[in-house]
Amino acid sequence: MDTHSRYTVSLHYDRRLYRQDIAGSVAHARMLARQGIIADDEAESLVAGLEGIREEIEAESFPWREELEDVHMNIERRLFETVGDVAGKLHTARSRNDQVATDVRLYVKEVIDEALRAIHELRTAFVEKAASNRDVVMPGYTHVQRAQPVLFAHHMLAYFEMFGRDAERMRQARESADAMPLGSGAMAGVPYPIDREWVARELGFGKVSANSMDAVSDRDFLLDFHSAAATCAIHLSRLAEELVLWSSDEFGFVRLDDMYTTGSSIMPQKRNPDFAEIARGKTGRVYGNLVGLLTTLKGLPLTYNRDMQEDKEGLFDTVDTLIPTLQVAAGMVSTMEVQADRMRNAALNSYALATDVADYLVAKGMPFREAHGIVARLSKYAVESGKRLGELDLDTYRRFSDRFDEDVLSITVDSSIRARDVFGGTAPNRVEAAIEAAKAELEAEGA
Amino acid sequence: MDTHSRYTVSLHYDRRLYRQDIAGSVAHARMLARQGIIADDEAESLVAGLEGIREEIEAESFPWREELEDVHMNIERRLFETVGDVAGKLHTARSRNDQVATDVRLYVKEVIDEALRAIHELRTAFVEKAASNRDVVMPGYTHVQRAQPVLFAHHMLAYFEMFGRDAERMRQARESADAMPLGSGAMAGVPYPIDREWVARELGFGKVSANSMDAVSDRDFLLDFHSAAATCAIHLSRLAEELVLWSSDEFGFVRLDDMYTTGSSIMPQKRNPDFAEIARGKTGRVYGNLVGLLTTLKGLPLTYNRDMQEDKEGLFDTVDTLIPTLQVAAGMVSTMEVQADRMRNAALNSYALATDVADYLVAKGMPFREAHGIVARLSKYAVESGKRLGELDLDTYRRFSDRFDEDVLSITVDSSIRARDVFGGTAPNRVEAAIEAAKAELEAEGA
Amino acid sequence: MDTHSRYTVSLHYDRRLYRQDIAGSVAHARMLARQGIIADDEAESLVAGLEGIREEIEAESFPWREELEDVHMNIERRLFETVGDVAGKLHTARSRNDQVATDVRLYVKEVIDEALRAIHELRTAFVEKAASNRDVVMPGYTHVQRAQPVLFAHHMLAYFEMFGRDAERMRQARESADAMPLGSGAMAGVPYPIDREWVARELGFGKVSANSMDAVSDRDFLLDFHSAAATCAIHLSRLAEELVLWSSDEFGFVRLDDMYTTGSSIMPQKRNPDFAEIARGKTGRVYGNLVGLLTTLKGLPLTYNRDMQEDKEGLFDTVDTLIPTLQVAAGMVSTMEVQADRMRNAALNSYALATDVADYLVAKGMPFREAHGIVARLSKYAVESGKRLGELDLDTYRRFSDRFDEDVLSITVDSSIRARDVFGGTAPNRVEAAIEAAKAELEAEGA
Amino acid sequence: MDTHSRYTVSLHYDRRLYRQDIAGSVAHARMLARQGIIADDEAESLVAGLEGIREEIEAESFPWREELEDVHMNIERRLFETVGDVAGKLHTARSRNDQVATDVRLYVKEVIDEALRAIHELRTAFVEKAASNRDVVMPGYTHVQRAQPVLFAHHMLAYFEMFGRDAERMRQARESADAMPLGSGAMAGVPYPIDREWVARELGFGKVSANSMDAVSDRDFLLDFHSAAATCAIHLSRLAEELVLWSSDEFGFVRLDDMYTTGSSIMPQKRNPDFAEIARGKTGRVYGNLVGLLTTLKGLPLTYNRDMQEDKEGLFDTVDTLIPTLQVAAGMVSTMEVQADRMRNAALNSYALATDVADYLVAKGMPFREAHGIVARLSKYAVESGKRLGELDLDTYRRFSDRFDEDVLSITVDSSIRARDVFGGTAPNRVEAAIEAAKAELEAEGA
Repeated sequence: MDTHSRYTVSLHYDRRLYRQDIAGSVAHARMLARQGIIADDEAESLVAGLEGIREEIEAESFPWREELEDVHMNIERRLFETVGDVAGKLHTARSRNDQVATDVRLYVKEVIDEALRAIHELRTAFVEKAASNRDVVMPGYTHVQRAQPVLFAHHMLAYFEMFGRDAERMRQARESADAMPLGSGAMAGVPYPIDREWVARELGFGKVSANSMDAVSDRDFLLDFHSAAATCAIHLSRLAEELVLWSSDEFGFVRLDDMYTTGSSIMPQKRNPDFAEIARGKTGRVYGNLVGLLTTLKGLPLTYNRDMQEDKEGLFDTVDTLIPTLQVAAGMVSTMEVQADRMRNAALNSYALATDVADYLVAKGMPFREAHGIVARLSKYAVESGKRLGELDLDTYRRFSDRFDEDVLSITVDSSIRARDVFGGTAPNRVEAAIEAAKAELEAEGA
Repeated sequence: MDTHSRYTVSLHYDRRLYRQDIAGSVAHARMLARQGIIADDEAESLVAGLEGIREEIEAESFPWREELEDVHMNIERRLFETVGDVAGKLHTARSRNDQVATDVRLYVKEVIDEALRAIHELRTAFVEKAASNRDVVMPGYTHVQRAQPVLFAHHMLAYFEMFGRDAERMRQARESADAMPLGSGAMAGVPYPIDREWVARELGFGKVSANSMDAVSDRDFLLDFHSAAATCAIHLSRLAEELVLWSSDEFGFVRLDDMYTTGSSIMPQKRNPDFAEIARGKTGRVYGNLVGLLTTLKGLPLTYNRDMQEDKEGLFDTVDTLIPTLQVAAGMVSTMEVQADRMRNAALNSYALATDVADYLVAKGMPFREAHGIVARLSKYAVESGKRLGELDLDTYRRFSDRFDEDVLSITVDSSIRARDVFGGTAPNRVEAAIEAAKAELEAEGA
Repeated sequence: MDTHSRYTVSLHYDRRLYRQDIAGSVAHARMLARQGIIADDEAESLVAGLEGIREEIEAESFPWREELEDVHMNIERRLFETVGDVAGKLHTARSRNDQVATDVRLYVKEVIDEALRAIHELRTAFVEKAASNRDVVMPGYTHVQRAQPVLFAHHMLAYFEMFGRDAERMRQARESADAMPLGSGAMAGVPYPIDREWVARELGFGKVSANSMDAVSDRDFLLDFHSAAATCAIHLSRLAEELVLWSSDEFGFVRLDDMYTTGSSIMPQKRNPDFAEIARGKTGRVYGNLVGLLTTLKGLPLTYNRDMQEDKEGLFDTVDTLIPTLQVAAGMVSTMEVQADRMRNAALNSYALATDVADYLVAKGMPFREAHGIVARLSKYAVESGKRLGELDLDTYRRFSDRFDEDVLSITVDSSIRARDVFGGTAPNRVEAAIEAAKAELEAEGA
Repeated sequence: MDTHSRYTVSLHYDRRLYRQDIAGSVAHARMLARQGIIADDEAESLVAGLEGIREEIEAESFPWREELEDVHMNIERRLFETVGDVAGKLHTARSRNDQVATDVRLYVKEVIDEALRAIHELRTAFVEKAASNRDVVMPGYTHVQRAQPVLFAHHMLAYFEMFGRDAERMRQARESADAMPLGSGAMAGVPYPIDREWVARELGFGKVSANSMDAVSDRDFLLDFHSAAATCAIHLSRLAEELVLWSSDEFGFVRLDDMYTTGSSIMPQKRNPDFAEIARGKTGRVYGNLVGLLTTLKGLPLTYNRDMQEDKEGLFDTVDTLIPTLQVAAGMVSTMEVQADRMRNAALNSYALATDVADYLVAKGMPFREAHGIVARLSKYAVESGKRLGELDLDTYRRFSDRFDEDVLSITVDSSIRARDVFGGTAPNRVEAAIEAAKAELEAEGA
C-alpha cells in the first residue's frame, strides 16, 4: 500500500476491538427483531454470521483485508460474504459513529477491570511484604535525608494507600465509560422505534447516553482513563525510583530478585535494576498518550470529526504499558529481599532522634520552642563530638537542661517509633491495625 | 532580594492560603487544649492571636515580610509578636509538612465549590438558550460538513451534558481532597495523644488520612483537579471554536453580544470574537499546568521533597483561568443572538435529507442497502440538476424507484427532525423532555 | 512469552535499526584491524558475516528470536552462528551503550533527510499553487473575520515560509545528531588504541563526541528532532484547519480532490475532508511523543539508565506520522481546486476596504486618527444602509469629509492589494518576486 | 474590575515589554520622517514623548491604567497626553499585530543573551570544579550501580558538554527570533513607502520577515526558546538529582554549601538540599509552558487570532525560572565541597575492575568472549569469598587462567582510569586536555 492509501487505515490497531464490535452487532440485531424492525429469521442469520466471524477471527482464519481500512468494514464485508444480502439489514438504525463509540466503551470497561485486578495484586504484595517484615526498622526520609525512624511495613503501606486511590480513580473512569451511545446514529438519533435500554442491558451498560450529538463526540471517558493511568504511573515511578536507590550499593536496603535485574555477565555482582528503570521510564509514554488525546480533542467543533480516530492507539499503548508495569511491580515487591540490618543501621546512624528528645522536654512541661533550642545545642554538641544522641550519657544531657532524667536514656529508635501512636502513625500497634484493615479491604474486593 | 534569596520564596503566591492556614491552626490549638496537651488559656491566646492576624491581613495592615519566605512563617512570626512565647506551643504535634498539605486541601475544596457554581451557571445558560429557541432548526455537522438537520436546542443540550460530566469530575476531585493529613507530623505521625477526628470535623473534612508517610507525599488530589480542569477546558475550547465559527461572516449563525467582541474602531462591522478566542487559547495553560505537576511528581522517592513546593502556582493559575472562563462562557451563551433564519437556510440548503429518503424506502420494506443505492443515484442526479432533494417532484422520484409515493414529498427538514424520536434524539418531544430534565437537575442542585 | 519476559523486549521495534547496527559494526571491525587490535582476516570474516546477515534480513530469511530481546543481540548471536568464535572479537573496545547510541544517531540523520525531502515536496506544492493562481483574490482573515483583501498566492507563500523554518530546524537537529559516540565504551572510554576519527568518517559523522559519560547519556538530538517535529505539526494542523474550513459549505474556497475526501455513499455531495482531519488529529501524537521523552529523561542521574530504552518507540512513531503527513499535505495542496469566484466574492462582500479609505485621507494630509474617526462614521452609515463601501457615491463620501475626491471611488479590492507594495506585502509585484525567490530557493535545494 | 473586564487584560504581565515597545516606536517614528511620511518635527515630538514615557516608567511615576488593557495602549494613550494629537501619527503604517510581534522578538533576543551569560557562568563552574579536583577518583555509574572508575573531573565535564549544547540551542532560537515583522501591518503589508530594512538595522534585527501573513501569525521563535529551555531543564534536573543523591548520608560525595541547604534547626546535622530539589521540581513548569504554547497554537487558521495573546505569560515564567535556576546551579557547583575520600572509597569498594581484567586477558591474545567467561567465574569466586578483585593474589588468578602474570596485580582503580586513553575518555591526560579545551572555549566566548 502506498502512503496515501495507508494514511487512513486503522485496521492494524483497531482489530483488537473485534469482540466488542461483534457483541454490539449481535445485541443490535436482536433488538431490531424484538422491535419488529427486521424479521426474526433475519436476526438469527445475522447473529449466526457474526458468531461465525468471531470464531474465524479467534481461529486466525479470518481474511483480514487492509484495503477495507478498519475492523468494522472487515466484519461488515465478511458478513455479506457469509450470510448474503441480509447483512445489509444490520446497519439499519445505526451509524459508524455510534457503533465505534460503543465498541471503545465496551473495551475500556474490560481493560479497567483488568487494571483493577493488577492493582489488587500489587496492593496485596505490599501488604504481604509489610506483614512478613513487621519488625523491620528503617530511616524515614524527607529530601532523601534521614529524618525519623519508621517501620518498613509503614512505608509499604504508604504505597498500599496510593494504589488504593488509583483503584478508586479507575472505578470512576469505568463509571464514566458506562453509558451506551448506540441509538445516536450519525449524531441526530435514528428514525426507528429502537429499544436502547434493552441493548444497554444486553451489553452490560449501566445507562444510555442522553444526547445524541454529545454521544458521538464524547471522549471524556478516555481522558478519565488516561488521567487515572497517569497518576498511577507517578506512583509506579516513585516506587521504581525507591527500588533503584534501595538496590544501589550505597543504600543496600533490598536485593531485587534475579528475575528483575540484569547483570553484566562479566560482573556477576552487578545487579542492574532494569525492570524498575523501564517501569520508571514508561511514565513518559503514559503522560505522552494523555497529552496526545488532550491535544487532539482541543478546539474540535461538534460533532464527530475524523481527528477522533486518533483516540485509539494511545489508549491501547497505555493499556499495554500500565497493566504489565503493575504486574512487574507486584513481582518485584513480592520477591525482593529486605536487608533488615542495613535498614536498621541506617536508622541508628543518624540524628533522627532529636525531635524525640525535644518532645521529651515538652512532656516535662517545657514550651516547645525552648525545648527545641536546647536540643539544637545538644545535637550540635553531639555532631561535633562524633556521637549520636543515643550515645550520650545522662550527665551530658544535664549539662544542657536539668529537666533531663534517667528516662531520657530510654529514647531509642524503637521508642521513637512506638511513640507515634496516632491513627496513620508508624507505631507498631497502628501499623498492625493498618495491616489488618488492608487485608480486610483486599478480601472484600475478592481476587 | 538577590536571585539566591528569592529562589526559595513562595510568599508572593502562597499568601492566598492565609485563611486556610489560620483555620487549620485554630482547630489545631483548640484540639491541643481539649486533649490537655496545652492549657485552655494558652489555646485561647493562640486563637485570639490567629484571629487578630486574619483581621490584619484582611484589613491589609499585616506586615508581610518576604525574607520569611512563605505565608506560614509570616503568620507564625507575627503570632510571636502579638501573643508572645505561647506562640511556640502552636507547633506542638504538628510539622510544616502536614500543615501545608492541610491548607492546600482546604483551599482546593473551596475552589472546587466555586468551580461547581460556575459550571452550574454555564449549564443554566445552555438550558435557557435551548428553552427560548425551541423551534430553531440548524444543520448538524460532522467533519464541519452539514450532515443532518437538528434542533439548535439539541445542540445546546449537548454542551449541557458535557459540562454535567465536568461537574461530576470536580465532585470526585473534591472527594479526593477531603482527607485531612494533620497529625502526620513530618511523616511518621506525632508522639502526642491528639484527636485527629475532632480536628477533621472542625475543619469540615470527611475523613483523616490513613498513612502518615503517604499523607505528606500525596498530591493526587491536585492531579484530580488538574485533570478535571483539563477536560473541562476541552469542552470550553470546543464551545469557543463553535462560537468563533458561528460568528464568522461565512456561518453567521450567532451574533455575539458587544460585551464579548472587540471591533476595529475603523471597521465597526467587524466583530472579533476575542473572548471566545482567549477562552480557547487558555486551554494551553490548563494543559500546561497539568503537565507541569505530572512532571514534578515523576520519580520522587518518599516522603516530602522540596520539589513539591512547585505544586501551588500551577494550581492557582488553573483556578484563575478556569473559573473566569466558565463565567465568560456563560455570559457569551446567554447574551448571544441566535440568527434563526441563517441556521434554517443552511439546513435547507444541503443534501442532509438523503438518509431520510433512504429510511423512507426501508420503511416500505426495501433492504437498507438497496435503498441506499437508489438514493445515492437520486442524490447524484439532484446535485447535477442543481436541485435539492426537497425540490424534486414525484415523477422524478419514481424514475428511481416505484416504491416512492406521494408521501415522499412530505420529507422535509422538519419531518427529518421529528423522525429522530428516540431517547437522546433530536425530535422536538425528546428535546422538550431533555430541557425539562435539565431544568429539574439544575433545580435539584440549587443555585 | 509471559508478561515478565516480554517486559524488557524491544525487538519488535528496534529491528528497524538493523542497517545502522550492521553499518556501525562493519566500520568498527575494519577499524579494529587497521589499528592492529584484531587481525585482518578476522575483520574480513566479521564484515562478511555482517553483510550476510544484512542480506538475510532483507530477504526476510533472518531467524529473529524474541527471547534475545533486541536487534543487537539477534545480530550478535547470529554472527556467532555464521562466522564462529571470531564473532566474539567484534565486541572488543565497544559496549552496548555506545553501540546503540551510534545506531540511533545514524537512523535519525537518515530520517531527517527523508523529512527534508517531504518538506521540499510540500513547499513546492505551495509555490506551484501560488504560481498557477496569481490573480486569485481572497479575504485575509484575522479572528476568522474578513479583514483585508489579499492574493491567494500570498496566503500560500505564508505556508512556504513556515515550512522553510521547519526545514531549517530539521537541519539543526541533524547537526545535533551528527556526533559519533562510538569509543565511549560503557561510559568511561575504552582501553584500546582505537581510531575514532576514522570510524566517524567511515560512517559519515561530522565529528566525534567529546566526553564519554555525556555521550552514552545524551539524547538531546532526539529532543531536537521531536521539537522540530512538533513545530512542523503545528504548521500542518493550521493548514489542515484551513482546508477543513475552506472545503465547508460555508466557505467553499477549495474543492479537495476525491483522493483526499470520503463521502457518505448515500450523500454523494458530502465531501468529508478526512485526510485533513487526520493530519490535524495527528498533532496529538507528535506532541505526546515529545512529552514522553521529556518525561523519561527528567531527573535521571548519569550515565546510562535503562529508562532510556524508552527513547525509540516515540521516535519511530513520530517519524511514521510526520513524513506521511507532509506527503499527504503536499498531495492535498497540489490537487485542490481553487474556487476563485467564491474567494473573490467573499473579499468583495466585506468592509475590508475601510482601512484603505482611511489611508486615502491620510495621504491627503489628514492626521491618521482624525481619518480614522471619519471612516468609522462612514462605515457605520454604510452598514446601516446595507451597502458596502465600494457602493457609495462621491456625494455620500463628501457628507463625511470634503477631502474626498473622485479618486476615492477607485478604491477597490484590487487597488487595496496593489497598495500593499512593501517587502513581504501582498501587492502583486511583491508576490511575484516572492514566487520567483521561492522557486530559486527550491531549485538551490535540489529535489 | 469584574471578571468580564479583567478577562482580556494583559497589562499585569505585558508591561515588562515597555522598553521594547518604546524602542520599536522610536525607530518607526524616525523611519516615517526619513521616508517623508510624517514631518521631521512630528517625529521629534514623538521620539521625545516616547523617551519621556520611558523615563516615567523607570521612575515608577507612569500612570498605568488597567482599563486600557495592555502596555501598548497605555503608552499610546499617555503619548496623546504628553505630545498631543501628533501622537496619532505614530500609528501610520503600523498595526497592533506587527507591533506586538516585534516587541516580543526584541524581548526574546535580550533574554536569550541573558540565558547565554548564565549558561556560561555555569559551564565555568564545572570547569573550575574539574580543574581544582583533577585527581579525584569516583565510581562511574550506570543504572545507579557502580560500573567503572572515572575521574570526578570527567564527570563535571560531561555537564560542560550538555550545557554547551544548550547554549548552541539558545543561539539557534535567537537566530529564529531575529527577523523583524514590522511593516506587515494587520497582515497584508502596509500601503506606505516605508523602509523596513532601515528600521530593522536600527533595532538590531538581522533580517526582515518575508511574508506579512506569516509574520503576524508566527510564534515559532517562542517554541524554539521553550524547546531549548526544556532540554536545558532536563540537564538541570539531572544535575540536581545527582546533587541530591551525592549529598545524602548514603553517598556522601559532596557537601553542599550552607547557602544551598536548609536544615531543621532542631537537627543541625540535617542538610536538606532544598535548592537542588526546587531546581529539579521547576522542570515541571518549563515543560508545562512548552506544552501550553504548543496547545494554544494547534489548529489556528491564519492569520492573527486572539488566542495568541496567551503566548506571553508562559514565556515570562520560563525566563524567570530558567535563568535563576542556571545561576543557582552555578552557585551550588562552585561552592560544593568534594568529599574525595568518600568517592575514592566507593570506587575501590566495587567490582568495577572486572572489565579491566578481561581486557588484560584480551591484550594477552585471548578472544574477548573467552576472557569474559574466565573473569565472570573469577568475579563470582571473589564475591563468594568476600573479596574485591584488587585483593586477590596471583595464585588465585592463575587458578582461573595461566595467562595471568604478575602484572595483573597492577590493575587498580588508577590503572583502569589511565587505560581509557581515547578522545573523550577518562584517562588523566585526556581529561587534562578537555579541561584546557573547555577553558579556551569559555575564553573565546568572553564573559
